[in-house]
Amino acid sequence: MDEIGVAAPQIETPEIREIAPAAWSNEITPADMHFVRSHFPIPATADTLEVRGALATPMRIGCDELRGLATRTLPVTLECAGNGRARMAPLPPGEPFKRGAVSTAVWTGVPLRLLLERAALRDDVVEILAVGADSFERALPIAAALDPDVLVAVEMNGAPIPPSHGGPARLVVPGWYGMASVKWLHALLALPRPFAGRFQTDFYVYDDEPVTTMRVNSLIVAPSEDAVLAPGRLDVWGWAWSGDAPIDCVAVSFDAGPWRPAQLARAIGPRAWIRWEGLIDAGRGRHTLRARAHDRAGHVQPEAPPHNRLGYGNNGVATVVFACVAP
Amino acid sequence: MDEIGVAAPQIETPEIREIAPAAWSNEITPADMHFVRSHFPIPATADTLEVRGALATPMRIGCDELRGLATRTLPVTLECAGNGRARMAPLPPGEPFKRGAVSTAVWTGVPLRLLLERAALRDDVVEILAVGADSFERALPIAAALDPDVLVAVEMNGAPIPPSHGGPARLVVPGWYGMASVKWLHALLALPRPFAGRFQTDFYVYDDEPVTTMRVNSLIVAPSEDAVLAPGRLDVWGWAWSGDAPIDCVAVSFDAGPWRPAQLARAIGPRAWIRWEGLIDAGRGRHTLRARAHDRAGHVQPEAPPHNRLGYGNNGVATVVFACVAP
Repeated sequence: MDEIGVAAPQIETPEIREIAPAAWSNEITPADMHFVRSHFPIPATADTLEVRGALATPMRIGCDELRGLATRTLPVTLECAGNGRARMAPLPPGEPFKRGAVSTAVWTGVPLRLLLERAALRDDVVEILAVGADSFERALPIAAALDPDVLVAVEMNGAPIPPSHGGPARLVVPGWYGMASVKWLHALLALPRPFAGRFQTDFYVYDDEPVTTMRVNSLIVAPSEDAVLAPGRLDVWGWAWSGDAPIDCVAVSFDAGPWRPAQLARAIGPRAWIRWEGLIDAGRGRHTLRARAHDRAGHVQPEAPPHNRLGYGNNGVATVVFACVAP
Repeated sequence: MDEIGVAAPQIETPEIREIAPAAWSNEITPADMHFVRSHFPIPATADTLEVRGALATPMRIGCDELRGLATRTLPVTLECAGNGRARMAPLPPGEPFKRGAVSTAVWTGVPLRLLLERAALRDDVVEILAVGADSFERALPIAAALDPDVLVAVEMNGAPIPPSHGGPARLVVPGWYGMASVKWLHALLALPRPFAGRFQTDFYVYDDEPVTTMRVNSLIVAPSEDAVLAPGRLDVWGWAWSGDAPIDCVAVSFDAGPWRPAQLARAIGPRAWIRWEGLIDAGRGRHTLRARAHDRAGHVQPEAPPHNRLGYGNNGVATVVFACVAP
């Protein structure tokens, strides 16, 4: 992809962090508390986006013009494909995320579909390659790229997208693991053949299969891991999401007991996590709470997903250990 | 075992706690920081020990007399069979120990063998049943009971054994998981047939096999989980132990890299954990460190041991996640 003139990667470390613990209880994660997983340092960005390749009408669009076109605003849960990697055994190489590489923000942007329609794609296009100014490149199958919820986003939580999160313009692909939501978006290339860049074929693969949508998953916000609480009735709650379908139900198991349904709150949107909650009666001593989400496509969190060499898609049942001590 | 006149279990919760985090760095764990796993509350204890059953010379020995006989002092690492249970998937029922149900103390006592020799065991004895004043009962195969390191202990770390740890007298069975080291020792019964009490047949079994000696295991003391450190050269260290044989070597893997041998300190005794240490060079970012012990009997810690219904013997490779941040 040399012709696109991507900036050479710099020597500095890319920005990587999990969600700030204080943000777990927010439906919408403040931008400065949202998880970050970049592959290269923040690049210098141009103020234009090129749309080229196998299409009739190549375009160069300024970011201001994108802002003028922006018509869609969606709360979207993004999760890094490596979330939960640190809990896999054998431990895979790669960033050792615990459970915090997931967050939810409100993204505003132009549907990618609208730009592709304007550009008049050729019939033989199979993938749309998104190129970041940092040299990160990922292609999205054309069917996924035409989902009207896929955005070329220019705002995050109602403000310009901060540099850490890929501003001025980035792709946001709801339902897919974060690698599809290319930051510092520099060019979109319509491809008549599948792309074989390193982030497509060397990374973000489950051994032989590509990593795509977010597997059904959940987390427990309260009690927090290692919490020490007074015994008695406890509100327990957390979040659940799936890239494949809405959440159908969340079941919880207290002290390794039977799975009982939790209550689901009203969804804040079809592409965002949903809050679940329940009540337990906890006596003195050490306790465990587990949560397991089911989606409407029939997927359920496994006790432990099949191992894969690079440690993607760990959606094993959520577990916390906490203690109740007499006040 | 009604005839022994065991105290009825009380309604209160038994005392259960992991090692105090501040004690991880002590070779010998102070008594008040040593892990505790009792099955019943602290009972009223008599000041005598009965030795009875299939033997020629039944005895009743006062604790003072035991103190007079005490000839052996040993540092012993004790680990609860349920240590690490909270990290197993599916999560088994039972006390959800993380990694802290292991400690090392110096125990002084009379070799059990000496008492059994005085009592003149019959040739058909297959097990020695130890009965605690709390009603806990566990039998030890005769071959294990005759190991000269098995003690009827009367001192812990050079002082009378505190009630939480089973004083005035308890069994200490080096090399075996803690359930064998019966607290508040009340009676020893020589049995011509295998014992089938609940802590022998319902609990402390790996599905079909009895839980016996401590599987080779290790832990990482430094860095601690979630530590935030300055980048650079870091001393890393921890403990390793096995109930079956001395530790042969400990290997460490930094950031999921190759296994490299750590250095072993001089052992403090053949029945106690041994310190291992190494140096790593850690740049900015999030890191993982793993440790894997091998014993001289050829056992090695697995990535994850085979699952068992009640969650015993989790000796999976030790892992910590930590971060280095520029000062």
